[in-house]
Amino acid sequence: MVKQDRAIRTRRNILEAAAKIFEERGYQAATIAEILGAAGVTKGALYFHFSSKEQLALGVLEEQDQRFVIPERSCKLQELADVVLLHAYRLQSDPMVRAGVRLSMDQHAEGLDRSGPFMRWSEVCQALLERGQAQGELLPHVIPSVTADVVVGTFAGVQSMSQAVSDYQDLRRKSSELLRHLFPSIAVPSVLTSLDLSESRGADVFEEIQRDLLEPAAVAS
Amino acid sequence: MVKQDRAIRTRRNILEAAAKIFEERGYQAATIAEILGAAGVTKGALYFHFSSKEQLALGVLEEQDQRFVIPERSCKLQELADVVLLHAYRLQSDPMVRAGVRLSMDQHAEGLDRSGPFMRWSEVCQALLERGQAQGELLPHVIPSVTADVVVGTFAGVQSMSQAVSDYQDLRRKSSELLRHLFPSIAVPSVLTSLDLSESRGADVFEEIQRDLLEPAAVAS
Repeated sequence: MVKQDRAIRTRRNILEAAAKIFEERGYQAATIAEILGAAGVTKGALYFHFSSKEQLALGVLEEQDQRFVIPERSCKLQELADVVLLHAYRLQSDPMVRAGVRLSMDQHAEGLDRSGPFMRWSEVCQALLERGQAQGELLPHVIPSVTADVVVGTFAGVQSMSQAVSDYQDLRRKSSELLRHLFPSIAVPSVLTSLDLSESRGADVFEEIQRDLLEPAAVAS
Repeated sequence: MVKQDRAIRTRRNILEAAAKIFEERGYQAATIAEILGAAGVTKGALYFHFSSKEQLALGVLEEQDQRFVIPERSCKLQELADVVLLHAYRLQSDPMVRAGVRLSMDQHAEGLDRSGPFMRWSEVCQALLERGQAQGELLPHVIPSVTADVVVGTFAGVQSMSQAVSDYQDLRRKSSELLRHLFPSIAVPSVLTSLDLSESRGADVFEEIQRDLLEPAAVAS
């Protein structure tokens, strides 16, 4: 048990160091030696967990994905909005998320399959849209797989423009504006008017998750 | 005159070589020596036109911008759609456009101000939206500057996702789907139903421009 805990901690250390180096240097320029230096682990420990630079990058991408468990909502379009707005909030505050997004967007990352995060995100969005459709939340013409790709692709661009123009300072506002442009083509009017797409929503959802993690007893009581 | 023509040709040669190298290697990894080799010009000629790698990259970004003169339309939202769909078409076929977009999206291009293309594109879109607004094409709540940023940011992401997932094979379809999601939040219904947002539109506009360039007499007659 203790050994396993240590292995998990070591793996996390390595991934955090890899995230930092990939973000600073880009995938192509980053070296395993730099990641080793930043992680402060032995070469043996690193290669026990990750056999190559590509495996390290895929590890960062997967770790990023796993940080997106969000509270379930009865309205599935609100849940979809929460996924996007929470992600915008985390991009501003969590280095692992930022590194994952930069890797996905790095068009010079030769030999790294960057389609994974786009596809996985798209699956998450599609599942929420299909559940929303079953509940009558969607306009009749909406095709969940098509709209899921639009949501994922557009958010990728909005974050990239926000990074280039304002170093993410305007990201929460831009994400809210994005959803205000997309959702009228997706949601039936009665659902549309009930949605919270505000720029403070991401921070609110984040706090809600932290509260639930810290006070499990309060939930049970 | 002859000297000036040669200078223009040399400048273009250098920019095309720079576009190729930046696209292959990324901004950070590319070197002036590689660009010199690809351009086949003397070091003196290159430095006469461009004083640094940054100046070369800014030259590629400007050249990309200048390729987007499109035919004027009486409906300004159609003109905006044409800008986006023609750009998607050119991304698939023009290396200079591809290199410019990749530079704009290169989050590891240290020391290169990438905000320029986003801002210039946003200004083009904003001007079209304002003219459309003056003609009554826009829904009352639309703020041209906000919607312009949404159009530019979302397209940037859709192209990036298309490159990662299908090497641009699905870009024309994805661009059409993007506009079908955005325009219902922008256009009044009577304008919306008159717009051509189809995936073949970009190629049609491209052919129209080529025809006008080749047959100026036909236009005058």
